[in-house]
Amino acid sequence: MEAIFPDSVVVTNESKIVFLIIDGLGGLAMEGKGGTELQVARTPNLDALAAHSICGLLDPVAPGITPGSGPAHLALFGYDPVRWNIGRGVLSALGIEFPLQENDVAARGNFATLDAQGKVVDRRAGRISTETTRRLCQKIREAVRLSPVEYFLEPVKDYRVALVLRGEGLHDGLTDTDPQALGVAPLPCQATDPQAEETARRVNRFLSQAREVLAGEEKANIILLRGFAKYRRYPSMEERFGLRCLAIANYPMYRGLARLVGMELHPVCEDMRGEFAALSERYREFDYFFLHVKEPDSRGEDGDFEAKVRILEEVDALVPEITNLTPDVLVVTGDHSTPSKLRSHSWHPLPVLLHSTYARVDEVGRFDEISCIRGGLGRQPMVNLMSLALAHALRLTKYGA
Amino acid sequence: MEAIFPDSVVVTNESKIVFLIIDGLGGLAMEGKGGTELQVARTPNLDALAAHSICGLLDPVAPGITPGSGPAHLALFGYDPVRWNIGRGVLSALGIEFPLQENDVAARGNFATLDAQGKVVDRRAGRISTETTRRLCQKIREAVRLSPVEYFLEPVKDYRVALVLRGEGLHDGLTDTDPQALGVAPLPCQATDPQAEETARRVNRFLSQAREVLAGEEKANIILLRGFAKYRRYPSMEERFGLRCLAIANYPMYRGLARLVGMELHPVCEDMRGEFAALSERYREFDYFFLHVKEPDSRGEDGDFEAKVRILEEVDALVPEITNLTPDVLVVTGDHSTPSKLRSHSWHPLPVLLHSTYARVDEVGRFDEISCIRGGLGRQPMVNLMSLALAHALRLTKYGA
Repeated sequence: MEAIFPDSVVVTNESKIVFLIIDGLGGLAMEGKGGTELQVARTPNLDALAAHSICGLLDPVAPGITPGSGPAHLALFGYDPVRWNIGRGVLSALGIEFPLQENDVAARGNFATLDAQGKVVDRRAGRISTETTRRLCQKIREAVRLSPVEYFLEPVKDYRVALVLRGEGLHDGLTDTDPQALGVAPLPCQATDPQAEETARRVNRFLSQAREVLAGEEKANIILLRGFAKYRRYPSMEERFGLRCLAIANYPMYRGLARLVGMELHPVCEDMRGEFAALSERYREFDYFFLHVKEPDSRGEDGDFEAKVRILEEVDALVPEITNLTPDVLVVTGDHSTPSKLRSHSWHPLPVLLHSTYARVDEVGRFDEISCIRGGLGRQPMVNLMSLALAHALRLTKYGA
Repeated sequence: MEAIFPDSVVVTNESKIVFLIIDGLGGLAMEGKGGTELQVARTPNLDALAAHSICGLLDPVAPGITPGSGPAHLALFGYDPVRWNIGRGVLSALGIEFPLQENDVAARGNFATLDAQGKVVDRRAGRISTETTRRLCQKIREAVRLSPVEYFLEPVKDYRVALVLRGEGLHDGLTDTDPQALGVAPLPCQATDPQAEETARRVNRFLSQAREVLAGEEKANIILLRGFAKYRRYPSMEERFGLRCLAIANYPMYRGLARLVGMELHPVCEDMRGEFAALSERYREFDYFFLHVKEPDSRGEDGDFEAKVRILEEVDALVPEITNLTPDVLVVTGDHSTPSKLRSHSWHPLPVLLHSTYARVDEVGRFDEISCIRGGLGRQPMVNLMSLALAHALRLTKYGA
């Protein structure tokens, strides 16, 4: 896909593009509920919009593949989610808005509990609080030096941490130290690439020093690391598409993903209503708006069908806040499905609507997973969405003579 | 796509395949018109055909990408339009049916006007006539020698020319000399690849000599060049698909594109009706027929919705000229959409119907952009069309054991 975006094809103009991303939007019918969450929800605004839009279904990565939030959002932003896949360590650091620099190597970590024989007995250290984790990180920072390599050990949430290494010649070809099992010893970090051997030695030195610092702790007496990944700078959406972009998102990971592709971040809002209000406040300043609503995903992960229906109805009620601004292109979709029935992300494609005066309006009159099957967009890889949005905003010139 | 065409898969038989290509076929609904051009047009023949065909929508290059005529036709002919993208210079030479040879380097050019300070004041030299352009080309040819490199300077239309360089070691990594702006000097041709430096020097020598020849001209006192591209021979449709192909097309560019893939060209016909008559005249001689109708694209580019409706109705009235021949496979589609609303090529997918005794007929009963959404072909990359046509002509054997 990206090969068809030679720079010359993108042009700039005064158009406004809004992506309303309803996290975990897609669902599944459940026994006795009368349809999917979106079918059961009363969503008159989204339905009216669908009736005047082109609709379809999007596969975030590929049919049958359940995406994490990272690949799903990259696809939404027009970045091939396989080519640009983000290592877990990097995603973890982005999630706390850590200012990664090119070539930093990041890992996600847990405080955990070892028994007297050095076997893991609790991978989550009794789920210690974020506050305790913060204290332990500080304690390690004060005692452990890795120079000339600089390191950052940052609390995430509860027992979770992010480790970032910065320095010359670091490499991310490294195995996890987290055995992801109980009753076994933590693993040494090993290089999977000869170039990573020095980095592996430094990681192991860091871990053994940290273990000494934690020796007196009852629960959290070791750090387990996994998902080593080197940060590389992504070409920004402004560089690729000529769009000045604003992200309106309340959760750290989505803010991190938006920053990864160069978006400016609006400050965290009090609630969903605040996010919609922010759109009109900042509307003049940017070309592209990523408006991210987290709550439907959380209700889906709770397995609470009715709560997901209710929150979708609340989102629907806010849609006029966007349509009143009459953006040139309005896209409504999600990043991935989160059916209450599965209580987790799923592989099911996402309904999508694209509203524009240049959209070839189809016969879809309701915005849900089943109605959108008959839409004019058909079933598309999600990564195509950005070129479709740019096209409808008249921001792409002709390809080839 | 092309990987699914190993030679062994293609077989030959007596079947006939006809592609009716209605240039600029796809449209958009406009306020008060009651639908798209194709929806509004009375097209009983195409509708009846659709009812007994498999239908769908085709994306010429990719969703959201507006194709030039070159990539769109290559996709129709089964050539990946990105891999086989044609340089503008080559397309320009093809458009005048210039007999390009392997490794020729071609550019498109304009006669333009420089002021006394050497700044471009008119990029089109006051839109001098084709006749004047012909005279000036002849004048340059008589005076300018580039040996050992041979060159051809050919009039195109109005102030436009095509330049073709032929000789050993030519390279097309060259920058434009056309600044595409007024009030600035023409640019020197520069090599973007060290291998192109000798070619750049020759281009600059040609241009400076031409400038001397043109010194006395009032309007056309310089040539501006752009789109340098080397011609490479394309594998022919006969080589790839075993099809003896005839192109019935009245416009030079489409004739050039057909010749690029090895089709024989039927002489230019008087009008659209003549083109349809030519099909039956030549029907016994060939396996595959590319029947190209230009007019709907022109009406779309004029922004004349009603005229496009009328010309589509005229095309429809000629469809029995094809169906009476009972080809084994009849495909009706376009190369790209040209909605009157946009007055230009657009990214919208093309309706397509494929008629064959082996087609799995779907429920589509009208041939238009909206009805075809529900077709059995779904939404396809256009490059898939040729393998579908060959399959329905029983010209593809089983792939793999």
